[in-house]
Amino acid sequence: MKIDLRSDTLTLPSEGMKAVMTDAVLGDDVYGEDPNVNQLEEKAAKMFGMQAALFCPTGTMTNQLAIRVHTNPGDEVICDKLSHIYLYEGGGIALNAFASVRTLDGNLGRITSQMVEESINNPNDIHQPITSLVSLENTVNKGGGSIYDFEEIRKIKEVCTKNGLILHLDGARLFNALVETNETPENYGEVFDSISICLSKGLGCPVGSLLLGTTEVIAKARRYRKVMGGGWRQAGGLAAAGIYALDHHIPLLKEDHRRAKIIGKILEKNKHIKKVYPVATNIVLAELHTMESTDFVAMLKEKDIYCVSFGKQLVRFVTHLDFTDIHLEMFEQKMNS
Amino acid sequence: MKIDLRSDTLTLPSEGMKAVMTDAVLGDDVYGEDPNVNQLEEKAAKMFGMQAALFCPTGTMTNQLAIRVHTNPGDEVICDKLSHIYLYEGGGIALNAFASVRTLDGNLGRITSQMVEESINNPNDIHQPITSLVSLENTVNKGGGSIYDFEEIRKIKEVCTKNGLILHLDGARLFNALVETNETPENYGEVFDSISICLSKGLGCPVGSLLLGTTEVIAKARRYRKVMGGGWRQAGGLAAAGIYALDHHIPLLKEDHRRAKIIGKILEKNKHIKKVYPVATNIVLAELHTMESTDFVAMLKEKDIYCVSFGKQLVRFVTHLDFTDIHLEMFEQKMNS
Amino acid sequence: MKIDLRSDTLTLPSEGMKAVMTDAVLGDDVYGEDPNVNQLEEKAAKMFGMQAALFCPTGTMTNQLAIRVHTNPGDEVICDKLSHIYLYEGGGIALNAFASVRTLDGNLGRITSQMVEESINNPNDIHQPITSLVSLENTVNKGGGSIYDFEEIRKIKEVCTKNGLILHLDGARLFNALVETNETPENYGEVFDSISICLSKGLGCPVGSLLLGTTEVIAKARRYRKVMGGGWRQAGGLAAAGIYALDHHIPLLKEDHRRAKIIGKILEKNKHIKKVYPVATNIVLAELHTMESTDFVAMLKEKDIYCVSFGKQLVRFVTHLDFTDIHLEMFEQKMNS
Amino acid sequence: MKIDLRSDTLTLPSEGMKAVMTDAVLGDDVYGEDPNVNQLEEKAAKMFGMQAALFCPTGTMTNQLAIRVHTNPGDEVICDKLSHIYLYEGGGIALNAFASVRTLDGNLGRITSQMVEESINNPNDIHQPITSLVSLENTVNKGGGSIYDFEEIRKIKEVCTKNGLILHLDGARLFNALVETNETPENYGEVFDSISICLSKGLGCPVGSLLLGTTEVIAKARRYRKVMGGGWRQAGGLAAAGIYALDHHIPLLKEDHRRAKIIGKILEKNKHIKKVYPVATNIVLAELHTMESTDFVAMLKEKDIYCVSFGKQLVRFVTHLDFTDIHLEMFEQKMNS
Repeated sequence: MKIDLRSDTLTLPSEGMKAVMTDAVLGDDVYGEDPNVNQLEEKAAKMFGMQAALFCPTGTMTNQLAIRVHTNPGDEVICDKLSHIYLYEGGGIALNAFASVRTLDGNLGRITSQMVEESINNPNDIHQPITSLVSLENTVNKGGGSIYDFEEIRKIKEVCTKNGLILHLDGARLFNALVETNETPENYGEVFDSISICLSKGLGCPVGSLLLGTTEVIAKARRYRKVMGGGWRQAGGLAAAGIYALDHHIPLLKEDHRRAKIIGKILEKNKHIKKVYPVATNIVLAELHTMESTDFVAMLKEKDIYCVSFGKQLVRFVTHLDFTDIHLEMFEQKMNS
Repeated sequence: MKIDLRSDTLTLPSEGMKAVMTDAVLGDDVYGEDPNVNQLEEKAAKMFGMQAALFCPTGTMTNQLAIRVHTNPGDEVICDKLSHIYLYEGGGIALNAFASVRTLDGNLGRITSQMVEESINNPNDIHQPITSLVSLENTVNKGGGSIYDFEEIRKIKEVCTKNGLILHLDGARLFNALVETNETPENYGEVFDSISICLSKGLGCPVGSLLLGTTEVIAKARRYRKVMGGGWRQAGGLAAAGIYALDHHIPLLKEDHRRAKIIGKILEKNKHIKKVYPVATNIVLAELHTMESTDFVAMLKEKDIYCVSFGKQLVRFVTHLDFTDIHLEMFEQKMNS
Repeated sequence: MKIDLRSDTLTLPSEGMKAVMTDAVLGDDVYGEDPNVNQLEEKAAKMFGMQAALFCPTGTMTNQLAIRVHTNPGDEVICDKLSHIYLYEGGGIALNAFASVRTLDGNLGRITSQMVEESINNPNDIHQPITSLVSLENTVNKGGGSIYDFEEIRKIKEVCTKNGLILHLDGARLFNALVETNETPENYGEVFDSISICLSKGLGCPVGSLLLGTTEVIAKARRYRKVMGGGWRQAGGLAAAGIYALDHHIPLLKEDHRRAKIIGKILEKNKHIKKVYPVATNIVLAELHTMESTDFVAMLKEKDIYCVSFGKQLVRFVTHLDFTDIHLEMFEQKMNS
Repeated sequence: MKIDLRSDTLTLPSEGMKAVMTDAVLGDDVYGEDPNVNQLEEKAAKMFGMQAALFCPTGTMTNQLAIRVHTNPGDEVICDKLSHIYLYEGGGIALNAFASVRTLDGNLGRITSQMVEESINNPNDIHQPITSLVSLENTVNKGGGSIYDFEEIRKIKEVCTKNGLILHLDGARLFNALVETNETPENYGEVFDSISICLSKGLGCPVGSLLLGTTEVIAKARRYRKVMGGGWRQAGGLAAAGIYALDHHIPLLKEDHRRAKIIGKILEKNKHIKKVYPVATNIVLAELHTMESTDFVAMLKEKDIYCVSFGKQLVRFVTHLDFTDIHLEMFEQKMNS
């Protein structure tokens, strides 16, 4: 039995989800005629109290569209140095938006309002890019699933408002944060100018992400989506899966977190592991003593346990919908064998 | 009964196609683990005798990836002024590839080897962009589904070879050309450095296009696909539909063409219509006497016939898998009523 | 005695100009402290009744700055197919501004208001770039120094106003047009959102061009000039030359035009020449019967006459400050020998 | 008497320099016909043992040309976080070259071979940009004129060679380093793929920088210079100044350094100053106790001493050709008054 903890993107559609996908009435989304796409976009926007949404093939596309819409060429984006938009989107900030980046050294990927304030360029100095966008990530993938303190987010928003900066959220795993805190989607909708959420991670859809924002932002994003090649046709089957996931899968994330905490405990006992990062949600980061992470990954693969290297001596395990208590039990046995 | 002739992108999956989509075993394509995606890419590459393929959400993405991979910033692309890559991809030649464009005035969207030769910039003149890519479209959408003479394509290839130019094909509707001529996919694979084919037009898939090329071109395109936001996850359901379409739907295009020719004849009799362009495949272009095309489109909509404006006094009708002989008969009755 | 008619960029500073260059008090223009640069910018802006100006190393830079400031990435620029901004600025519309281009087929490089109106993309169609800028050139280099009818320019302005388009002028040789017509710089300042003028062509400066526009446009251009590498330091010697040229050299252009017309007449008698284009200003275009233009250029070089190939069977001669009546007489003798 | 220590860009041409500028024979550099430009480019290339050089209006242009020539869109550049190319070139890495940047936390702007090695992205991971260029700065402006240990540069070169990376030097103040060490221009020419040197800083020219590299790199840079608007015409007066500076001004930098060290000592005694950074060349950085740097700058301005704010509590003083021992004496008096 394969224990696949490489990523929560690996989940396969559940039977319920497959049923709605098969039954979905389709239409051409370029013509705005796919009923499930339209319904999903409306549902997500409403959930966050935002004006509009756009359904896209990936979270990279939704993030990149936001960056492009919110910046002018030559502007500067502020984000943590562990941000997905900086590290894992192929240099898209520069390539897609022609924007410079100021990477800050936050706490497990979380920056503070003070750090933001101190990093804003003098808008009158023509040597420097104009700072125009701050992008946060919650939970932070590379920070081990760390959760932002919402009060800090509010303070960052104040700095943004005071300085005319736009605030974007890479919320690929935002629902993981929400089920662990008392915040609601509306809280986030109030604070952010745009939010990207992914359906294909913990929520278990095969494909799809949504960008949320004002009507104007989404209209611009829809235009750029076309030129980036994201204007798909009958995407309604995927959209139906998204609707199903928003209706049924959010509370299940709590279970992923419970299992991740147990994995963290199991790993702490492993002789190769020096330290397990605090497990806040569904991601477990473990730092190795001296072994190279690629060797450790290979060693576990021998036991049919799959995880990924996340740095020279860092490995990542991610729990998800298809990792059940049975898998967890098996994981413990194998790790202890 | 609605007669929808706006586009062949509007088709819905057939029952057979839906079945394979539902049964498809999925995997994460970013990890290269979706069996249907892998199979579709191999099948398409083999069909054209090319080394590799990449499955993408849209034909705009496959074309834009090709242009980006084949050019350096500041280079120039030669194409007909009616080309989809120039007219309908949101200015992507400039925005995605930073390339200039030289638009030629061909015959219904088809350029000649002589026109190409005369449009190549002097590579030693630093005032001018370096010409590096020629892009053809076959069949030509804006040219009314016109088909290239393959001998002319061969001559264009010779000019390209002589001048160190790369040759790309926007083959969104290439299969429409193939079923009308004696050429094979291999013929095209031999001549072009890259080919884009669409599964979501006449072939009837809900979503998806393929870029074909050498292993190196596809490796580069895979990287750019990621940064453009096209690196989707479990795209296997859509890929299964693509495999089904390649296996079953190609010969059916002949029927679309037969019906399009009949539509052309019916339109010729219409008093508002001055001229019907030669009907070569599944697209019918009709030029109006004095009526504005938007008014003509509105007038037909009253009869539940849907077509699109394609210029001030030009309208387009497209036949497709979901337009059957019953629809054709109805179309004739309504047009004559 | 060398007769150099290749370009009016070849002129050398006159004695008077050299004197002011040597005596110029300098300062650092990045700090806004070069008195001659400041004075030149103010003088030029005032001359055209515009708010501000920016002194740059080349006309390509002033044009490219205008295009970048006036467009968003993915927009479309309308211009004649013979425009310098399209043909001779290295593909900068795409490379510097990420903008698409719609090239129109005007009369010797001059487009009409009707052509502009018919080329504006539907702003609601996300397949197409948003048309945002129209760029005219006056006089038109590639059009043989042709002059725009100012009434047509006014009509183009009306189309722009009605459609929310910005209107830029590449006025590299605008003063050549002004001395031949009754228009004033202020007439142009009223109609155009930005104007580029060159000091290093007919006006005889060694280096330098100016972009004119609103305070806001010039502030943005100043920022982009920095990132393009145009933020030079003590440019005051060159600026002093510019002030001198605006004060003394404009009326002399009339003489260039007189001599160009005579050159045209002389060329008409040449057996290799099929046709001389109408000579409106200081540029003479001659079309050859069958000889290749490079051969013709080489043949004249034997006689110590220098001109340039401007197409397969097209050659260009340009009169300028350093081409006097003595040179003209010599030219006639050599051509007739 | 004004004591201007804001920058070494502020120097005015000496009498000797002015004489050669006035007497310079000019030509059109776009045609490759300016004798002084050609001579300057040859002289500089030869001095560094490199194949070719390109004379440009600014050091920003030479650096940006190098970055553009050395990278493909979407690549990543490694540099120190204090680098001029990152901080003071208007976001040009992204805007001009579409490249991502990895900023390292070096010692006063100097990175190590180990830091470079650890920052190279895995070329097989399509999530990450391809690392292709390392850019060093010597001396480091923002590092207070700090000088690289040449042995470390050699080690960085080894890492580059091993990993297929290109190595560029922003040598805006390289001659300041050379006069303080035993290294020669040839040493640098051997190690770097391209070098940018400025003539308008310590060397005292009004305008101009040079990019040095292989014939191929310079040919590509010449083309991009054109599209960036740097293809100036009769730049020979400025080039003559450059030749003069290379012949006469290099040894004088030693004097600037001596005076800077004395300034450092004077500043150390100032009650507002907490710490003076080590003075290695002609730049003095001073950190303030509690006063804001803008206030300190204003306070000194009252005494007719000019310096610049270089951070919230950091000020910069730069010595240069026009700052003599008389000025130094005056500076000491004023600071102690």
